[in-house]
Amino acid sequence: MSLLRFDSTTNDWVIFAPSRARRPDEFRGACPKPTVESPGKVCPFCPGNEHLTPPEIFRVPAWGLPKPTDWRVRVIPNRFPALRIEEPIDGSTDGSPIFRHRGGCGAHEVIIESPDHDVFLAQQPVEQIEALLRTMQERHNDLLRDPRFQMIVLFKNHGEGAGTSLRHPHCQLIATPVVPRLLRTKLGIAVDYYDMTGHCLYCVLRNDELEASQRVVVQNSDYAAFLPYASHVPFETWILPLSHHASFGDVERSKLRPLAEILKSVLQKLSAGLDNPDYNLTINTVPRGDEDKNYFLWHIEILPRLTTPAGFELGSGMSINTVLPEEAAAYLRNVDVA
Amino acid sequence: MSLLRFDSTTNDWVIFAPSRARRPDEFRGACPKPTVESPGKVCPFCPGNEHLTPPEIFRVPAWGLPKPTDWRVRVIPNRFPALRIEEPIDGSTDGSPIFRHRGGCGAHEVIIESPDHDVFLAQQPVEQIEALLRTMQERHNDLLRDPRFQMIVLFKNHGEGAGTSLRHPHCQLIATPVVPRLLRTKLGIAVDYYDMTGHCLYCVLRNDELEASQRVVVQNSDYAAFLPYASHVPFETWILPLSHHASFGDVERSKLRPLAEILKSVLQKLSAGLDNPDYNLTINTVPRGDEDKNYFLWHIEILPRLTTPAGFELGSGMSINTVLPEEAAAYLRNVDVA
Repeated sequence: MSLLRFDSTTNDWVIFAPSRARRPDEFRGACPKPTVESPGKVCPFCPGNEHLTPPEIFRVPAWGLPKPTDWRVRVIPNRFPALRIEEPIDGSTDGSPIFRHRGGCGAHEVIIESPDHDVFLAQQPVEQIEALLRTMQERHNDLLRDPRFQMIVLFKNHGEGAGTSLRHPHCQLIATPVVPRLLRTKLGIAVDYYDMTGHCLYCVLRNDELEASQRVVVQNSDYAAFLPYASHVPFETWILPLSHHASFGDVERSKLRPLAEILKSVLQKLSAGLDNPDYNLTINTVPRGDEDKNYFLWHIEILPRLTTPAGFELGSGMSINTVLPEEAAAYLRNVDVA
Repeated sequence: MSLLRFDSTTNDWVIFAPSRARRPDEFRGACPKPTVESPGKVCPFCPGNEHLTPPEIFRVPAWGLPKPTDWRVRVIPNRFPALRIEEPIDGSTDGSPIFRHRGGCGAHEVIIESPDHDVFLAQQPVEQIEALLRTMQERHNDLLRDPRFQMIVLFKNHGEGAGTSLRHPHCQLIATPVVPRLLRTKLGIAVDYYDMTGHCLYCVLRNDELEASQRVVVQNSDYAAFLPYASHVPFETWILPLSHHASFGDVERSKLRPLAEILKSVLQKLSAGLDNPDYNLTINTVPRGDEDKNYFLWHIEILPRLTTPAGFELGSGMSINTVLPEEAAAYLRNVDVA
């Protein structure tokens, strides 16, 4: 069972997915703690264990890899989905006009990055990262064919401090029946900027960061990676394309290779420079129907989990960052990676 | 050194406080980890060590307590402030119109809850909690006398998972020279609701929660505690007054005692029911100048840190809650506390 409830004080929809959960009393002593993988445990994401996962949605076949590894990347439904395609999409109220809910209609998929249980994304060869990005794009575009889904949120959680529970490297996507409010806010700000200036805010930001240069970490023919001027957390890193596409779904096949290259380079620098930090990665893109608009530039945001947001941040929404991005960028530029 | 930078993509101000930090290379291996208090370490918040803190701002004297404990509650400047009264308030741009900054003018204070190093807030006698709340109100009102400060954010971090670094129980406040965007958003939504209906959204919410009754945990003559319909995290608990004040600063002295009573009761239930969970507590109130407005109701929000927000939550701003508040509320109602 899964549903959405509207928070009338913030205009957020909140996803309720009690099937993912313990019963209330099982939260006793449940503060997030590092969990150690039990040595004898069978990994459902490893080759040979495909029967332990829900039925496969998509795979990139493995050319020339030894059996039983006959896939490079594999996509499966999340066994504990936040949203499900079987749920209704309609809504109603619960006794009061301000208690509004909708069915938890959506999709929640797991993208197994590679057959390797112990090889992090930063350590994968560029071709493997490219295959992963192509898979993410395929799933993004395929799910948007379902008119019920407004937004496809693609993300990765690396490390327990970033919220992952299974060690075998994987990404996830959630298709939502609404555009989440934070994204609505960001899109609205970008639309206003476009209406005011005729320019895409993110293209201007990228150009100004490249001109200032002090927060740029690495650049290639098609992408730039920098730590934004107003980074919310230490070592927050963005990867922006140099040419304009609003949607990640529209990136040309030929541009996925240089994307894989710069992503590997950034992740390697973060890993070597910060001792394999926990991080979250998200792909920022436009909702259904805005693919051809000029106001937004799709991009990747990487948020290392080096500090803990506390009461001030949660209560005010305002971030406290303890390192200037130009200092963090200079540090990362000096980290040598192969 | 402390400054604010404007995030042109979200309209957030971000606080940069590099003096709180390590140098960039000191973030290596810095993922938040439980830190164990070293046994021989001297606590600067304990009685007898007052000389180890910056000069005291305020104290509630201790009547009848033995020396050297001659205070009940003590307020001091934060030794590693996010914002400082010495910083400039004016701003400028850094090369580009979208790179805007301001001085980090504000205040950051620590409120030592009691002389007891090992007694959590939930375990304190009601009189002590009342003295703490009175102190928070005093500091709120005193800081608002400085016209540079727009908002006083009062909060508490309990436990390492909630971002605290010193074990001796304490609250904090940060006075900001801007109204943080999240609060601006919430205030704007409440203003719109007031304009549309003539009612305070939070009073309606409280009345509707009391009528539905299934999410109410505890209630007394002056306050109600409930888990809101669209709780963002498991066991999120709000305490709302039954009579209308927009500002926490305007709560009558006689209403602080029942507030201390219901707060103790809620914290005891959370502690006993969930095995002393980490949590953040924030006091939600209006910014400077809106104290007499009818659109907002000050209140307390308690956010237990039982789950880790991951890439989906950070990327979309949308929460996934794995327990329905009515089930969590039923569980808490059944937790017996003295």
